[in-house]
Formats: sequence, structure tokens, C-alpha cells
Amino acid sequence: MAIGAWILIALMCVFWCEVESKYMVYNTTSKIAPGKLNVHLVAHTHDDVGWLKTVDQYYVGSNNSIQGACVQNVLDSIVPALLADKNRKFIYVEQAFFQRWWRDQSEAVQETVKQLINSGQLELINGGMCMHDEAATHYIDMIDQTTLGHRFIKSEFNVTPRIGWQIDPFGHSAVQAYLLSAEVGFDSLFFARIDYQDRAKRKDEKSLEVVWRGSKSLGSSSQIFAGVFPENYDPPSNFNYEVNDDSPIVQDNMELFDYNVPERVNEFVAAALSQANITRTNHVMWTMGTDFKYQYAHTWFRQMDKFIHYVNQDGRVNALYSTPSIYTDAKYATNKAWPLKTDDYFPYADRINAYWTGYFTSRPALKGYVRTMSSYYLAARQLEFFKGRSKVGPNTDSLADALAIAQHHDAVSGTSKQHVADDYAKRLSIGYEETAKVVESSLASMTRSSSKADSGSPVTEFHQCLLLNISYCPPSEVDLSNGKNLVVVVYNPLGWKREDVIRIPVIDENVIVKDSGGKEIESQLLPLQNASLAIRNYYSVAYLGKFPSATPKYWLAFSASAPPIGFNTYFISRGKRPVIATASKSHVVYSSEEKRSDVIEVGPGDVKLVYSKNQGKLIRYINSRTMVKESVRQSYSFYSGDDGSVDEQASGAYIFRPNHTYHTRSDGQASFTVLRGPLLDEVHQRINSWIYQITRVYKGKEYAEFEFTVGPIPIDDGIGKEVVTQISTHMKTNKTFYTDSSGRDFIERIDLGLYIKDDSKELSVLVDRSVGGASIKDGQLELMLHRRLLHDDNRGVAEALNETVCVQNKCSGLTIVGKYYLRIDPLGEAAKWRRSFGQEIYSPFLLAFTEQDGDEWANSRILSFSGMDPSYVLPDNVAMITLQELDDGKVLLRLAHLYEIGEDKDLSVMASVQVKKVFAHKKINEVTEMSLSANQGRAEMEKKRLVWKVEGSSGESPKVVRGGPVDPSILVVELAPMEIRTFVIEFH
Amino acid sequence: MAIGAWILIALMCVFWCEVESKYMVYNTTSKIAPGKLNVHLVAHTHDDVGWLKTVDQYYVGSNNSIQGACVQNVLDSIVPALLADKNRKFIYVEQAFFQRWWRDQSEAVQETVKQLINSGQLELINGGMCMHDEAATHYIDMIDQTTLGHRFIKSEFNVTPRIGWQIDPFGHSAVQAYLLSAEVGFDSLFFARIDYQDRAKRKDEKSLEVVWRGSKSLGSSSQIFAGVFPENYDPPSNFNYEVNDDSPIVQDNMELFDYNVPERVNEFVAAALSQANITRTNHVMWTMGTDFKYQYAHTWFRQMDKFIHYVNQDGRVNALYSTPSIYTDAKYATNKAWPLKTDDYFPYADRINAYWTGYFTSRPALKGYVRTMSSYYLAARQLEFFKGRSKVGPNTDSLADALAIAQHHDAVSGTSKQHVADDYAKRLSIGYEETAKVVESSLASMTRSSSKADSGSPVTEFHQCLLLNISYCPPSEVDLSNGKNLVVVVYNPLGWKREDVIRIPVIDENVIVKDSGGKEIESQLLPLQNASLAIRNYYSVAYLGKFPSATPKYWLAFSASAPPIGFNTYFISRGKRPVIATASKSHVVYSSEEKRSDVIEVGPGDVKLVYSKNQGKLIRYINSRTMVKESVRQSYSFYSGDDGSVDEQASGAYIFRPNHTYHTRSDGQASFTVLRGPLLDEVHQRINSWIYQITRVYKGKEYAEFEFTVGPIPIDDGIGKEVVTQISTHMKTNKTFYTDSSGRDFIERIDLGLYIKDDSKELSVLVDRSVGGASIKDGQLELMLHRRLLHDDNRGVAEALNETVCVQNKCSGLTIVGKYYLRIDPLGEAAKWRRSFGQEIYSPFLLAFTEQDGDEWANSRILSFSGMDPSYVLPDNVAMITLQELDDGKVLLRLAHLYEIGEDKDLSVMASVQVKKVFAHKKINEVTEMSLSANQGRAEMEKKRLVWKVEGSSGESPKVVRGGPVDPSILVVELAPMEIRTFVIEFH
Repeated sequence: MAIGAWILIALMCVFWCEVESKYMVYNTTSKIAPGKLNVHLVAHTHDDVGWLKTVDQYYVGSNNSIQGACVQNVLDSIVPALLADKNRKFIYVEQAFFQRWWRDQSEAVQETVKQLINSGQLELINGGMCMHDEAATHYIDMIDQTTLGHRFIKSEFNVTPRIGWQIDPFGHSAVQAYLLSAEVGFDSLFFARIDYQDRAKRKDEKSLEVVWRGSKSLGSSSQIFAGVFPENYDPPSNFNYEVNDDSPIVQDNMELFDYNVPERVNEFVAAALSQANITRTNHVMWTMGTDFKYQYAHTWFRQMDKFIHYVNQDGRVNALYSTPSIYTDAKYATNKAWPLKTDDYFPYADRINAYWTGYFTSRPALKGYVRTMSSYYLAARQLEFFKGRSKVGPNTDSLADALAIAQHHDAVSGTSKQHVADDYAKRLSIGYEETAKVVESSLASMTRSSSKADSGSPVTEFHQCLLLNISYCPPSEVDLSNGKNLVVVVYNPLGWKREDVIRIPVIDENVIVKDSGGKEIESQLLPLQNASLAIRNYYSVAYLGKFPSATPKYWLAFSASAPPIGFNTYFISRGKRPVIATASKSHVVYSSEEKRSDVIEVGPGDVKLVYSKNQGKLIRYINSRTMVKESVRQSYSFYSGDDGSVDEQASGAYIFRPNHTYHTRSDGQASFTVLRGPLLDEVHQRINSWIYQITRVYKGKEYAEFEFTVGPIPIDDGIGKEVVTQISTHMKTNKTFYTDSSGRDFIERIDLGLYIKDDSKELSVLVDRSVGGASIKDGQLELMLHRRLLHDDNRGVAEALNETVCVQNKCSGLTIVGKYYLRIDPLGEAAKWRRSFGQEIYSPFLLAFTEQDGDEWANSRILSFSGMDPSYVLPDNVAMITLQELDDGKVLLRLAHLYEIGEDKDLSVMASVQVKKVFAHKKINEVTEMSLSANQGRAEMEKKRLVWKVEGSSGESPKVVRGGPVDPSILVVELAPMEIRTFVIEFH
Repeated sequence: MAIGAWILIALMCVFWCEVESKYMVYNTTSKIAPGKLNVHLVAHTHDDVGWLKTVDQYYVGSNNSIQGACVQNVLDSIVPALLADKNRKFIYVEQAFFQRWWRDQSEAVQETVKQLINSGQLELINGGMCMHDEAATHYIDMIDQTTLGHRFIKSEFNVTPRIGWQIDPFGHSAVQAYLLSAEVGFDSLFFARIDYQDRAKRKDEKSLEVVWRGSKSLGSSSQIFAGVFPENYDPPSNFNYEVNDDSPIVQDNMELFDYNVPERVNEFVAAALSQANITRTNHVMWTMGTDFKYQYAHTWFRQMDKFIHYVNQDGRVNALYSTPSIYTDAKYATNKAWPLKTDDYFPYADRINAYWTGYFTSRPALKGYVRTMSSYYLAARQLEFFKGRSKVGPNTDSLADALAIAQHHDAVSGTSKQHVADDYAKRLSIGYEETAKVVESSLASMTRSSSKADSGSPVTEFHQCLLLNISYCPPSEVDLSNGKNLVVVVYNPLGWKREDVIRIPVIDENVIVKDSGGKEIESQLLPLQNASLAIRNYYSVAYLGKFPSATPKYWLAFSASAPPIGFNTYFISRGKRPVIATASKSHVVYSSEEKRSDVIEVGPGDVKLVYSKNQGKLIRYINSRTMVKESVRQSYSFYSGDDGSVDEQASGAYIFRPNHTYHTRSDGQASFTVLRGPLLDEVHQRINSWIYQITRVYKGKEYAEFEFTVGPIPIDDGIGKEVVTQISTHMKTNKTFYTDSSGRDFIERIDLGLYIKDDSKELSVLVDRSVGGASIKDGQLELMLHRRLLHDDNRGVAEALNETVCVQNKCSGLTIVGKYYLRIDPLGEAAKWRRSFGQEIYSPFLLAFTEQDGDEWANSRILSFSGMDPSYVLPDNVAMITLQELDDGKVLLRLAHLYEIGEDKDLSVMASVQVKKVFAHKKINEVTEMSLSANQGRAEMEKKRLVWKVEGSSGESPKVVRGGPVDPSILVVELAPMEIRTFVIEFH
């Protein structure tokens, strides 16, 4: 029927039809129509787990002056909306919100929701606590936060989410594709943000939907069907129906004015056909929702009901209520082959000069805090397991929750507002406080010998030093003149025996260190420099509200070792230091010493750093063992952040948009000092008034450690600055660099490390948190360490990234203290360090302190312990990334092969772990292999896996080797390169 | 418990309490607590029946880019919200929306809603189709629109609204208090907008709540308890809970951050106590809602649930779900005496220099259209009754509905956006089109003699001329040279016999007029002036889309009479006009005639207007019968509207804010022409290029009629203008003037008329629509006729009041053609004219035209008819303001006494109407006296009426005399001064 006629009828009715108005029933029963273009209406809301408001504020709907958003409304209103019509469907994603809401519901509502989930009307997808970032997150955190959500869903609803739904993160990683999608058993993965030029090309080629093989090592065994949305995750324009949205509603009441059914149907069909033009098969998905929508779900469903009714009446296309699962099944059912995607979707630019790479470094303090807590959580769960988990607490749950939330793509990414960043930190802090109690009581219990009758003695109070990074450790800053011993329990969360130099602040030079056998061991005192003390004092006042009571004079360094997944004990007591240390400071050698040469060589072991004497600058890296020798310069520069005055694209929390590079210039405060000793040498350099650097070279370690102190970045010139350090060599690298998630030739984020190589050497850098990095000049690496900006980059956060710290209302720019590690190896020999030492950086020794009189402790306590069989360690290529007692008393174990295929000639091979020896103290009843998020049996998951066809590949994909099934009698777990295997273990 | 402790507990819980979260049940059962301050939470939404969007757009939620508002959401969401907790309550007001929604509901929902209404959870108050304006509305329209809503509520729900709820109109009239509140049986009336200084005083004196006696004549018999809100009709600040509102929510979940129950309870108590300080008794009302709120009702109720729960737990005050009814009953139960209020609440200023008096004249064309349609609707219902109402149509329902909506306080008030004003006009036009069919078919049927056997002859096609005001009447602009007669049926909707001069445009001078007896009667031709033709042509093209086909040369005037509630027939045919008219134009005498005098005297009868010859200006008004003679000047001026540059208060749709007065100056186009004749004289004056005036003095009528044509008001000087006419005399009036709702000494609105008086004379002015008026200088009256402004006055409409009319995209300012009437009487003798002629202005003759051959019509048709007994007319002081057949076949009759006590020495007395003679053609079965809105028996209503005590009055109020009960056998209705009595009559 022509539109003209429709309108005429409508008008006529306004005039004359005495239409007896009646209740309109819409036909929403449509399913997939084989011969037609099917428009899958996927009703969804995207609820950031913190961004402009905190997660709790979003949940309860407070602080609406910042953003009108209340997730409680969404979930409250979705229930009656789904009940009103059983054809309606909705997906919900963020479990942090869902769990908050679930706890608030009556049993009756819970029962209803269970039915809605059962019937598929409400589908929980993605299913982690948040939609984690994919750049600044560590994969262990991604796994943990996903597991937390998935296991809740499994236990409450007996459901396993089928779909990855990473619609908002700012670029997409290979790890997300192969690990957090394929390995958790998802059937597909959907997202929106890819490079704008890539998107344009994919639209042209109809390759927005692909089969993505993210892992070279695991290949087709962990591929996933992955769809990029044509534009964003909103509905097509003019189809938004939140309360007060201004898209035209379907006015189908002929008794009222403005009847518009034909126009709206035409617009719907046009938008569907337009999308069909860039999509393979006759299925297109409309994402019907966006950020914090469905606050009154009825408003959306009322319009979708009408569209489905009238569009299907029209008949040109078929509209239906759908979900990504239904959509995926429909795609799969077409039996088509899809383009192959390898690699990742980084970096993300949404238009010219708008690379979302600034956030790889934004809020480096938060990024560092998250990484520290992540590691601590891993260790704490081991200790919680050893002691036995307490349901009523304290336990590690609140840290688990805080960490999970911190993985959100506006949390660790650094793209939230300041008050929200503070909220994430507060949650981590609260979680840490509780978890520290778990750790301390577990160690107290483990050190208490059961054979000795000291069960009546008071519970030991252990203390820990979270703020060692600012040289603050009250438990070690104690007066030992009364004959007390400072007991230091050194816990090693790794599955390997391990030795490392420990540094703790002490107030007295007359201290000696003894091992658990009572034997004094070598130690070294390093005078605490003024720069460190200044930071210590300022941040103590700022964050703890008090000036430190003691003032330590030295760092006491000694080399400690600990068994795998176990601890060792050291004792610090007052004592005369051995001869070499008698003359106080005689071991401290200042740079003025090396008079005869024009260079200064630093490092007590095989690795030496060579500095020019007159300029105090690093010029060479030497490893006398491997004979590697490379000219190396290291310097600091900063980019001036664009203020947006040219094209309204300023540099900001998301986007790195420099307009100039400046080398830092010494501003008269430059200094160069070397401290030498038996265990390590330190080079202290004041680069300028706001950059300080300590370079450490250890006797037994073949790398250099750079500890930088950057800040407060000055902004009194009105210019925001982004501070980088460059490491320059003569290597011919073709500007190519490699990160732990396959780098590109522009700014890239680094979660663990990066390296460059030429035909003979590899230069590797490892970091202590995620940072941005690049190789812009040949032979050079660049890390972005800190950013302080004065403009918003117009992607929603609406704040300049200008972090400050305040004392008595006087605020100054935030100072960042962090570390990175440098090593140069012969070509092909670097992976070992990157992988193994990378694991050590992630999981440092956990230290606990207590004071005891004389030798009482040594005589009555257990001084050394390993969770594993004393004769056993994990293979060098395997890490235990999860050991956790679950709610039901079973234990979750994850083992990860650390090497890719071909990465190392010895270690890129199948590994085996003897589970019985791992749990030497327990008797295993049953071991069940699970999906990565431990919400289903692995076998069951594999059975359900969809086998997608890949374009151009003739039939079978190359066979990927993975570890074989676990024989229940011998319990040996095989791990192929890059494989992670997850088990739930039941003990007798 | 101290707040400090609360917060501590909250914080502690975040850290440590392993609170098992559970579903929170709030205690909302609270009723009135006698010993406490009771905070009545009245959940409400205020839904304008058109303002920034049209009524239908507001209902369906379209056009949200203008304003996010969807009434469907409100009513959809309120049902589950009320079902969720039986203690929750809600009031709904605007029946235009409620009826739209009701028609859309399923039977199940309707049944649920009926139960909610039955239980009192959902209370329908006010209950008219809209919340009518109280300044620009005619009381008959107010009654009709209220009746429409009230009868729907009665028939669907068997409920009579108890409360007047005029919370938004811009000032409040006495008529609203005594007529539309007390006489419809309301127990109280609430509103928000009164003069800011009055409000301040009333807060001081705790006199926001009063007993209001609006009628001098009806006194305490129609008083009402009336409450002004302390500020507006919003909740106290920080207690707004629409989706996305930013008031702090009650965060009572100790597991989440920002727990704030103590703070919020304190704020609640503080706000309650603050209101208690300005309120008598221990009951305060919180209006929990505002414009278009409760789109997701749940968001409000969730917070109110919490407040009631925690505030009552706190115990300092008592919070409860309430309604204005419960609140009123609580106030009444205190048995306190209240301050007495007489008079009205006009004008309304919300701050200095912000008098909401502009809207008394804003959109004069719409105001005129509404008044014309109101009168037409009254007449049409009489004709519909005579013919018998058709349920399936055409009937008068759509006009009833359009008129009802047009009474909204942003409709006839002129304060809507232009597109919405167009919508009101469109609805009236559609209503008129259908109603015209009722009128035409009724007249066709009534003129058809039942005794003669012409039932087989074709149905007569009558035509009407709505556009006579622009000299456009195709049915009369016909060629009668072929011997056809133009039949003119003249219908008189008044209950009195009546004679009036009719003017119709004709194309030929050779026409004569015959009465129903075939006798030629006196007539007069007046040449149509160019000014009138120009308007006719321009507006025909603009509004009808075509240039008129014929061009009339003359107005044909003749005096017609018609019986009460009946018609008479006149015939116009080609014929030689009597001698006096032979010499064409000999009866037209131009001003040049009176050569010998320096004045020109105009008027064929007793009233003469005297003009100065040299200036062409009115100088004197003479009535030779009454010997009244008064010096009178009449002129035009305009105010320049303030542009807001000084204090951001521009003149606009709401507010009259002049910054200067200018007399209109002749711009070279001034002219002065007198047309004389036997029936009337016309003085044509071109005042300037955009003001034209025709003054008419009729032989048999003792007043002067001024027809003004104002516009397009020029704005090329960038200045908005507000055009007034002044009538100046030498009367000593102390600047006091009187309008039909008790005037004040500033700009006041006029619905019907106004007058001034000195010790011997009264000068009265009657108007054809509501206008603003004032008496600023002694002896002078001023009427505001038209406004064209260039700035918005910042009260929400966000448009300048700049009405234009466009032809082919070329727009110019809207021209207004209107009339006012002037008469000067001896003191004490003016009321008769004001009251009786006022009724004639409101209800002019309704004219219908048809063409017939020769004398066929006269021979075969009924030529004259009265609905009443031929011997009977209504008393001079009584008007029949409603005669309407109801849906059930019964008839609604309203009789109104037109005079106040003491207004006229003869007519301010008890009147009697013989109902049997009114319905001479019918046999009455039963007459039931009803409330004014006809939704309950009058006796039942009076029995329920609350008897409020008035402060200072010792016991009994003075006895008010009202008409006595109607004896069913004789059926005589007594009416005391100003009494309106409403009956439902059942016929055999």
C-alpha cells in the first residue's frame, strides 16, 4: 500500500472513524525466517563497573548530577518487562551489578528470575564481574574476574555463559580471543571498537565477522567466531527508546494525531538493508541499547513489540527478539566459511589523530597498585588454602571482588574520573586489609609446629609492609637493642625454588642477618637517600595522615631463598657486622672513586653498566658471561600533550596526542652517585628536579633494574606532559618491537614486557605494571611512565588526567615510583629470562615480620616449608597461576605453560606436572578438568564447541598438539606450549 | 544515636561485617500519628494537556527532543508500583490523558485499575479533562470540561473526585473557588501560584491555608478549604526521584559505599519542621512530583518507602503515604478555625517586575476561536438534543473534547509553543467540522414539517459561515438572478426572544429581504471596504489554500428576530430595493456631508457618537433616552515589550513587562469615513498602516460596537509591541475598575467585561474574548488587544510570542479582528446591559443558509420554532447555560442566575423557571438535581459537605438564601442571585 494512502486513512480516522479503541496485542512471536533478512533485535544495557560514578553509585543511582544512571532500575524493570511477553529477551553482562542486585531481591523475585534465565528470556553473557579492559589487564586478573562471575552464575542458575561481549573496551587483544573466549567455552565474541580504517575496510569486504585465532601456539584449538559491530554498540540511529530519548516512537493509535507506522517501518527496513550490505548471510544484529539503558525497560520493549509486529506485517524483512546466542547459532547454521583473523585489534583509533593509546599508561599508580594486589591475591589464596578457608572471614573474597572490579575497562585503564579511581583504590585497600589478616594468620598457623606443644602460646602477630615502595616499613624500623630478633618470613608463591635480594629499611647500622639455621649471612647496608626519604615522609602524611614515627637510615639488603609454594625464615638482630662492614660506609663507594678512567663501571657480578664519567650517563651494557656487549643510552623525555586547539583532539586519559617532544634538561639539580656493595651496586641519578632514578645491578642477576621516581610533573607552563624513558642502542631492528600480545609499529601497551632484536641480540624490558611503549627509532625502545594533562580528550570522562596528591589542601602532581628491568641476550636466549623472571616480577617474595625474644622462635617454630613434595619443583616452563580453596572445600588449580611454540629451544615443549607431588600433604580423591573459568567440565565444553569454517582453508586446520587427558591413577598433567589447564580437585 | 556512631558502624560494616544481604522489606504502613508532625507524602505528576508538545505527543512520548515526557509511561508504571505495596498511593488529575490511556488498556489492566481506585490507592482528583486556566477561560467552558471528566470517572469507576487541584494555573479566580470547587462538591482546593508578596505574608501569618468564599452572593454556602503550597508543587529540594534526578537517594545498604540513612533522615526532618513553621496544625503536605514525573513510578516509591521506614524509625516526625483527601480530612479533624479569604488570587507575580498578566491577551486569535467554539458548542448541543443524539456520530463529542483540552492553562492562556497552539486550533477545527454536520442535519430535520408529506424529499443541505469575521461566506455570496431564494435560518440559543442585526456579504446590490411571512423587511447595504477585502483575501489563501472565487460588494444588514431556544427564517432574493434604496449609494453618506458643523454625529437611534470633524476623533457619547452624555476619547497605543536586557525579565507569553508606552501615530494612511443607513451607522477609521477600526451604532441598540483590525504589528525596529486601546473620560473613578471576577488596581484579565463608575454614571465595556485590561489613569479604561514579542520571558515555553501567518513561505505578523462594546449608563442601571447583552455576545445568532427555488421553502417547511412553550420565555435574570442530551438519553440542564446580590434593583432577586414549559414538547418523567459537574446528586453532595470553621466568625455564618428544593409535581426551579443549578432530566 502506498504511503499516501496510509496517511489518508490515518487522517480520515482522526476525522471520522468512530474507532472503538481497544487494547492492542502485538505479535512478537517471530522466529528466524529462512528466506528473509533477519534482524536480530538484541536488547541490552552496557553498565560500566565504575566510570563517571563509582560502581555502587551506578548501582543505587546516586550522584546522578554527574550521570543519570541507576543499574538497580535496569534490573528491577527488566523482570516485569520480560514477564509481560514471553517472546521478549534480554541479555545481562556485568556480574558486579547483577550480584549486588541479586542479593537485594526477595525469594519470590529470585525464583522468577531463575525461571526467566531458564527459559532463555534473560541470558547472562560474558559473565565476568566486569567487562574487563584488554590492554592494561594481566591475563591472570582477567581469568580470576571471569571465574568469579562464571562460578556465581553456575552455582545460582546452573548456567554457563555462551557469548563473549566485550563491546566497549578500547581495542581487543589476542588473549581475549583465544583465552578468555575460546578457553572459557564461548561460542562467539562480539565487540565494537576497532581502528576506524580497519573497520572501513572490513565493511567493504564484509569481513566484520571472522574466525579469530589469537594464539599461534594453540591455533584452531582455541579459535572463536568474532563479530565487530558496524559502528558502535548503540541501535541504528533513531531507534533509541530510553525514557526521554528522542527517537521517533511508533505512533500506531489512529485515534491520535501523528500516526506514523508506515514511515517507521520504512526506516526500519532501510536501516536493516543498509546493514545487510556489509554483512555476510541474511542475519544482522541490532544492539538495542547502550550505556545504562533500560532504566525503565518497558519503554524499549513497547517500541520493539511494535516494530516486530508492523515490520513483519510489512514483510520485507523479518524482525525478531534475539540474543547473541541465537544470532550465533543462526550464523553457524548457515554453514558458511568466514575470513580468518590472527593477531589482535590494537591500537584503536576512532578517527585520525585519535589513537587510544594514552590509557596504556594513564594512572600509573593505580595500574601499579592493581598489579601488586593481583600478585598478593595469588599468594594469599595459596596461604588461605594451606590454613583452610573461613567462610565468615576474614578471607580473600573482598580482595577478589575489588580486583575483579578494578579490571573494568575504565578502572585499571585509567579512564575513570578521579573520584572513581579513588574508589577502586579504596576497595583494593579494604580488600588488602582483610586479606592481610588471612595471610598473617595463615603464616602464624603454619609456623606453629604441631608436633611441639605450643598450641597454648599466644597467636603470633605478623605484620607486612605494603609501602616498601616508599621506604616505609614500621615492622622493620624497630630498635633491636633490647635483644629482640626481627623474624622475617619469606614466602615464595612460585612453583620453583627461588633466591632473591630482599631490601628492608632499618634504623640502625648494627644489624646482622641470620638464616633459619642460625648462620649469619652476607648483607649490605645502603644509606637511604634524601630523595627517598622525602617521598616517604610526604606520602605518609598524605595517605596515612601522619608523619612516620621512626626515620630509617639504611636499606638492609640480603639474599633470601625459599622453597616452591613455601617459606623460609630469616632473623635480623643487633650485632657487629663482619669486618668488611665494620668501617661504617666503607662499603659505600662514591663516584669520585674511579679517578683514573673516564668511565665508571657498575655491577658486582657478570652484568656491568658502564657510565661516562663526565656526563654520568649510561653508555654500555656488558654481560661477561654471555659476552654480550651493547652500546646503550638511557634518557628521559616528555611529550607535550596537545591542548585540542587545532582539531579539538587534545591528549587525555584515553588518547595520546602529543604535539612535540622535549628532552628533559638538567635544571641545575642533576647529580650522579654510585653506591657499591657485595650484593648490588646502585647508581642514583637526579635527572632534573622532578625525575630521580636508581639503577641497580645485582651480583647474582643478569639484568639491570631501573627504579624511577617521576613527579610532580610541572604544569606551571600550562602544558600537560607525558613522560617517557628511552633506551637506545645501535641494534638494527627495523623499528619492530614485540610485546606480550604481538606488537605493532606504533605505541603499544605492555602488560609484562617487550623486546627488540637484531640478527645477534635481543634487548628485553620487563615492567612492574602495564605501560605504553613503542619503538619509534631504530634500535630504540620507549616506555611511557607517567602522564599529567590539562585537557579532556572528549571521550566522555570529562576530566583532565591531572592526578594530584594533597596535604592540608595543598595539592601537587602525583609522583610515580616504579621499576623496569633491562637485559640483553644473545639472539634466541632471551625468552627464558622474560618468561621466568617475568613471573618473578609478577610474584615477588611475600614478606611477613614479627619480633621475638632471643632464639625462642628458632627453637619452637617451623622455619621452612613447601606446599609441595620436598623433592619436587614445577618444570621451568610451568607456573601455578591459581591455587585456591573454593566455597565447597574443593580446590581450584590452574597450571600455565609459559612458552609459545618456538620461543625457546628447550622450554617450548610439552611439560608435565605431577599433581600428586604438588599436593604432597594431601590425599587426592578426584581431579576434574574444567573450562578456564571453572564453570563446566572441559570435556563437556569441548563437546559443545562449534566448529567454524574458515575461508580459504581446505577442510581441516593443522593439528594442534595439546596436553592429553589426565590419567586419574597417576595424575600427571601435560601442558603444551601456552596451554593453561584448570582443575577442580577434591581431597579426602 | 549520634550520627558519628552511625557512620562508624557503616564504615565498620564495609570492612568487617559479613552481612548476609537480604531482601529489605520497608514498613510503609504508617497512618496519621496524633501526637506528631505528620508529613503527608502526596505522590503526583503534573501533566500539562499540551504545552511544549501537543497533548498526543505528551501522551505517547513523541517529540522528546523538545521535552522528555510520556504520560503513557506514567500510567503504565504506576499500576505495578501501586500493586507492589498496598500502602502506596497516587493521585491522577488530567482526564484527557487518563482517558487516552484507559482506552489503550486490556480488560485485565482495567480491572486492576478499578480495584486500585476502589481501594483508594489510586485517587482521581480535580477530574476535569485538563487543569483549566482560571483567567482566560469562560466559566461555561470550565463547567463543561470539568463535567466531561467527572462524568467519565463516575460512569467508569462510580467515583466523585473530592479535591480541587489547580496547582499550576497562573493565579486563581473566585469562580474556581466557589463554582468549580464548592459547587462540584470538592472538599478542598490546592494550588501553588499566588503573588510572591502575598505568599510571604501568608507564610508569616500561617495563612497559606484558608477558607475561601469566592462569591459575595453565595457566601458560606459555596466556600472551600483552600491551601496554597509554600513554594511550588515540587517536593522539597533534594527529594526528587524521577529517573536520572540528582537528589540524593537513600543508600541503606551497608554492604555498599556511601551509606547515608542518618543524613537523609535528618534532611527529611529538617524540611518537615521548616514547613511546620509556616503551617497550622501538625499536618504538612509534600507534593512528591512535578511536571511529567513518575515515568518510572518505581523510582519515586522506592525512595519514599525508605523515607517512611527510616524517618518513622527515627521517630521525630511521622511520614506517611497520603493523598490530598487524607490530608484534608486530617485538617478537618483538627476542628480548627481558618483565616477567611474572599476575592481572588490575581494577578500573579512570581517576583518583582514579573506580573503574569501578558497571558490575559496572549494569542488573541486562539482566545477568540475558543470563545466562538464555546458558544457554538452550546447552541449545537441544543440542536443535537432536538434532533436526538447519535452515538456513532456525527455528534458534538469531538468538539466537546477539543474545547475541553483548549481550556488547559497553557492552551487558551496562550502560553504554549506555536505548534501546540496550532494543535489546539486543529482539534477545534475538526470538532467544528463534525459539529457543523450535527447542526445542519438537525436544522434540516427541524425545518421539515412532519405534518406535510415531504419525508421523501431530499435532505436539505444547510451551510454555515464560520469565517464571517473575515467577510467570507460562500453560501451568501451567490448569484440569485435565476430566481433562487437564499434561505437564512436564524437560530437563537438564548432562552429569551431576541432581535439582532444580521450582516452577510452579498455580491449584488439588487437584493431584498423577506421575513417568514413573506413580507419584505427593512435592510441596508454597506459597501465592503478595501481593508476588509484585503484581510478576506489574504487569510483565505493562508488558511483555506485558495483565493475566494466570488468577490462580494456589500454587507447586507437586516434586523432578525428569533424565539427563545428556537429559530426563525428569512429569505433573500433578487428584487428592487424600496425607493430609499433606488439611487444606489444614496443611503451612504460620507463625512464631507455635515458641512456646517465642526462635529460629526453618528448613530441612527438614541445613542450618538460625536466626532471632531477636523481630527476625525471620537469626543462624545450621548444617549438621548437616558440623557447620559459623556466626553469620551478613544485611542490606540502600544507598549514596547522589555527585551530582558536589564534584569533578564523580558515581556513574553506569560509576563507583561513593558518598558515604554507609545501613542500610535498616523503614518500618512489615516482616514475617516462614515457610512450611514436606517439600521446602523459605521465609522471607518484607518488609525495607521496596521490598525483599522470600524465603529458601529445601531438604531435599536444603546451601545457602540468597535471592530478593530490590528496587525501585522511591525517589528522591523526590533521591538516587540503590545497594542492597547484606551477609552478616556472625565469620570472620577479613583482608578478603580471592576471586571467580572472582581478587579484590582493593576492589569487584570477580562473574560466578559469590565466597567468603571463615578457618582453618576457607569461606563461598561464588553469583549468578545478574554483580554487583559486596566485602569491606569482616572476615568480611563485600557484593553490589551494584541501582542507581538521578540523575546521569551523565561517561564518555560522558550519561544517568543511572535504569531505569524504565511503564504508561500512568506510570513507576516498575525492580524487580529475583534470587537468590543461600549455603553454608558446612569449609575446603577448598567448591570442589565452587561449581563443580558453579555449573554448575547457569548451566544450570537447561529446562521444557516440554503438555496431554494421560489417560494417552495416557505410553502413546505417549518419557518419558525421554539423549544419552549410558545407563551414562555426564561426570566430576564436566568440563562440556560447547558441543554444537552447525555449518552444514556437523559438530558442535562443547567440554569444560571446572571446577577449578583445588589447588582440590579429589579433583577438581583430570586428567579423561577418553569421546567415543564421549557420542555413543552416533551413529557418529563423525573428531574434530579445534581452537583455542578453532574456526577452526583446535589442532596448527597450537600450531605457530605465539610463545614469548616472560619477564624473570627462567631459560630454561624450569615444565612445565604438559595433556591429551594424542586417540587416534582410542579417542577419550578428557583434560582437565587448567582446560583447555577444543574439537573438531569428523564423524559417519558
